[in-house]
Amino acid sequence: MIAYRSLRVALLGGGSVGAQVARLLLEEKEELARRVGATLELVGIAVRDVDARRSVDLPRELFTTDAEQLILGADVVIELMGGIEPARSYILQAINSGADVVTANKALLATHGPELFAAAEQVGAQLYYEAAVGGAIPIIRPLRESLAGDTVRRILGIVNGTTNFILDRMDTERTSLEDALATATDLGYAEADPTADIGGYDAAQKAAILASLAFHTSVPVEAVYREGITTVTKEQIESARKAGYVVKLLAICERLTDPETGEEGVSARVYPAMVSRTHPLAAVHGANNAVFVEAEAAGSLMFYGAGAGGVETASAVLGDLVSLGRRHVVGGPGLAESTHAELPVLEIGAITTRYAVSLEVADEPGVLAAIAGVFAEHGVSVELVEQSVRGDAATATLVIGTHEAPEAALAATVDALASNRVVTKVASVLRVEGAQRQ
Amino acid sequence: MIAYRSLRVALLGGGSVGAQVARLLLEEKEELARRVGATLELVGIAVRDVDARRSVDLPRELFTTDAEQLILGADVVIELMGGIEPARSYILQAINSGADVVTANKALLATHGPELFAAAEQVGAQLYYEAAVGGAIPIIRPLRESLAGDTVRRILGIVNGTTNFILDRMDTERTSLEDALATATDLGYAEADPTADIGGYDAAQKAAILASLAFHTSVPVEAVYREGITTVTKEQIESARKAGYVVKLLAICERLTDPETGEEGVSARVYPAMVSRTHPLAAVHGANNAVFVEAEAAGSLMFYGAGAGGVETASAVLGDLVSLGRRHVVGGPGLAESTHAELPVLEIGAITTRYAVSLEVADEPGVLAAIAGVFAEHGVSVELVEQSVRGDAATATLVIGTHEAPEAALAATVDALASNRVVTKVASVLRVEGAQRQ
Repeated sequence: MIAYRSLRVALLGGGSVGAQVARLLLEEKEELARRVGATLELVGIAVRDVDARRSVDLPRELFTTDAEQLILGADVVIELMGGIEPARSYILQAINSGADVVTANKALLATHGPELFAAAEQVGAQLYYEAAVGGAIPIIRPLRESLAGDTVRRILGIVNGTTNFILDRMDTERTSLEDALATATDLGYAEADPTADIGGYDAAQKAAILASLAFHTSVPVEAVYREGITTVTKEQIESARKAGYVVKLLAICERLTDPETGEEGVSARVYPAMVSRTHPLAAVHGANNAVFVEAEAAGSLMFYGAGAGGVETASAVLGDLVSLGRRHVVGGPGLAESTHAELPVLEIGAITTRYAVSLEVADEPGVLAAIAGVFAEHGVSVELVEQSVRGDAATATLVIGTHEAPEAALAATVDALASNRVVTKVASVLRVEGAQRQ
Repeated sequence: MIAYRSLRVALLGGGSVGAQVARLLLEEKEELARRVGATLELVGIAVRDVDARRSVDLPRELFTTDAEQLILGADVVIELMGGIEPARSYILQAINSGADVVTANKALLATHGPELFAAAEQVGAQLYYEAAVGGAIPIIRPLRESLAGDTVRRILGIVNGTTNFILDRMDTERTSLEDALATATDLGYAEADPTADIGGYDAAQKAAILASLAFHTSVPVEAVYREGITTVTKEQIESARKAGYVVKLLAICERLTDPETGEEGVSARVYPAMVSRTHPLAAVHGANNAVFVEAEAAGSLMFYGAGAGGVETASAVLGDLVSLGRRHVVGGPGLAESTHAELPVLEIGAITTRYAVSLEVADEPGVLAAIAGVFAEHGVSVELVEQSVRGDAATATLVIGTHEAPEAALAATVDALASNRVVTKVASVLRVEGAQRQ
């Protein structure tokens, strides 16, 4: 029996992830001690209500409502409360009292990341957050360390399990968004107020975190262009299916050239996009997450797994905790956040991608030529056109697939189409992502 | 302009990976310095022949044939020579002279890993090897750090690109092994002597490395059960396809209970196996690699990407180099190898899995009952039987799919079948992997 030194671990938050972290810390105490070289001593769990029902049975004496007292004297503080305050204040208190911090708080990192990282760097404390993106999937550490010698060109991420479940169900069961959302709510994949998920807010926070990390640049969540899935229709998914595509809500982080200045910049954005069924991301079903990374030397990589869930996310928290614990034992500091590149963050108008535009048009001679003319005027090159005539035969539906085109040019094209005499309605505009860039 | 301190990097080996590492070190010098906080100074490249043609144009003055001299005074030594000797001696020299080491040498790690890790630990040096398994795919670091707080139950890996290319081609083009191998050779995916790949030796080395890491146990390559793909036939792949399966060469590392002692042990093995087409591994095409990890808390994770290639593998080497460089700058030691669990490594007979057994049998009454009887006698439960009568009608083909059964029981069943009067021939036995374990 080896006598280990002991590290004091304070846990803030007793929800589904917190309860699993506490359980594993207690159940796996000896094994974790062998891996760390020190005992991880759970000194307490700060919660709002000590008597609330928990998903896991835990010793009552661990619970306290006094988070500030608990943080004092802790070697590592695990923040799993969520939200901005008081989480932000507690993390700053922990850092300033000399503790390292593990957090899964994506909202806080996406809004106050630079402040927290700066505070940590000033005192030589560590701030780890593997669980903030992709649940159990190791994605922060690979970006932070494994690809540290490479140049990331682009990230395409399915980072929100709820919306992936909904879109996957709309595709496989051919249901409407409303029905798929109802099923997601019934099965516990969607919350009572699903806005954060289906509005793309959750994905935007994760995009900000991934872009900051991948491009060594601070990308605040406010700079992330965001569209949710609320406007995605059964018809769009059906039309995508016929063309060999699936619709996914993607968080896209991309290094690109600013069309105005010619300088390198970064784009972070979230929107539903068409992805070819042959792309690895198309095979990500249900509530799973996956992050597809394109790097200059490494080529294409994908990281796949459960994006949420209490015990799954707890695995990522414990991985961070073991890493931090080892650093305590061997005595060396860890890694600082790196934002030396500070590339400009570009507006959505600066991106180029492919588009699928569905139009309802008058079914009369010369329409196709008129429409093609509008695209040509704005410099948007058309790859294919598919026409189908409606039952009433007075209108027809045109689906136009474009080559890579600037977002600004496409937006101007759509404006011009909307006011064109032969166009009854611009039924749908979807971006098409995942193709190899030239 | 910041004045950085300089770290001396010595490179051993100027092959396709080495040349790309050298190129990136020279081309990305400033960016890497910003990431590391120190300049990575490539002080030389040790090769056998200074005048040999290289895939990349590099300054001639960097090349030397004197590896021992080059190692002296290096802060980090990158070993990309391959093979056991002199790579082993050079790495030991580097460690003993105080340098950290990055290597992609899977053969060396799988045979002399414990010796090298012990030598490194004794002097506090670091030995990193992300590039040894899965090329550019970050898999070593996720296992070593991200899952450090979790318990890995099983790993199913497609870790050899050559054999995956061949099997994928046999499946998609319906060609024979010989034709697919010829194509692989033409396209440069297979070497002139393909034994290391198609015999499963390369995959077995990677299985030894993954099992050691995942189970905190030294698993030497000699303890890895190994079958190559040389016996895989067009007919097996056709029959698998009809049943909804694809044949993949898998490296399997599993935590299981020794049926004899009832104690926990580990199994590491390589063989061609049937994988359901709905499994994420089935979608890994061409020469790509993927590692599917099942952990207790994290659930199922998959890591996917290019498993080989000079520039891809160089990305993994540089990631290790940046990590080590940062540690030099911040002054702290890194992670020691962990083999505290030292679980017993079990024989192939100890595993349980599912099987697909193809038999040629006499087409006469009572045959099915006789065959079923043989399985029952050995305690192997049959899940499904498919019978097809040959053109000549004197013999029939039976495919029997089993439930999970012990390998030892299956082997005894196959022996009994082979000597059974009604069985003309045991045409094929394939294991079926990838199902959720109970």
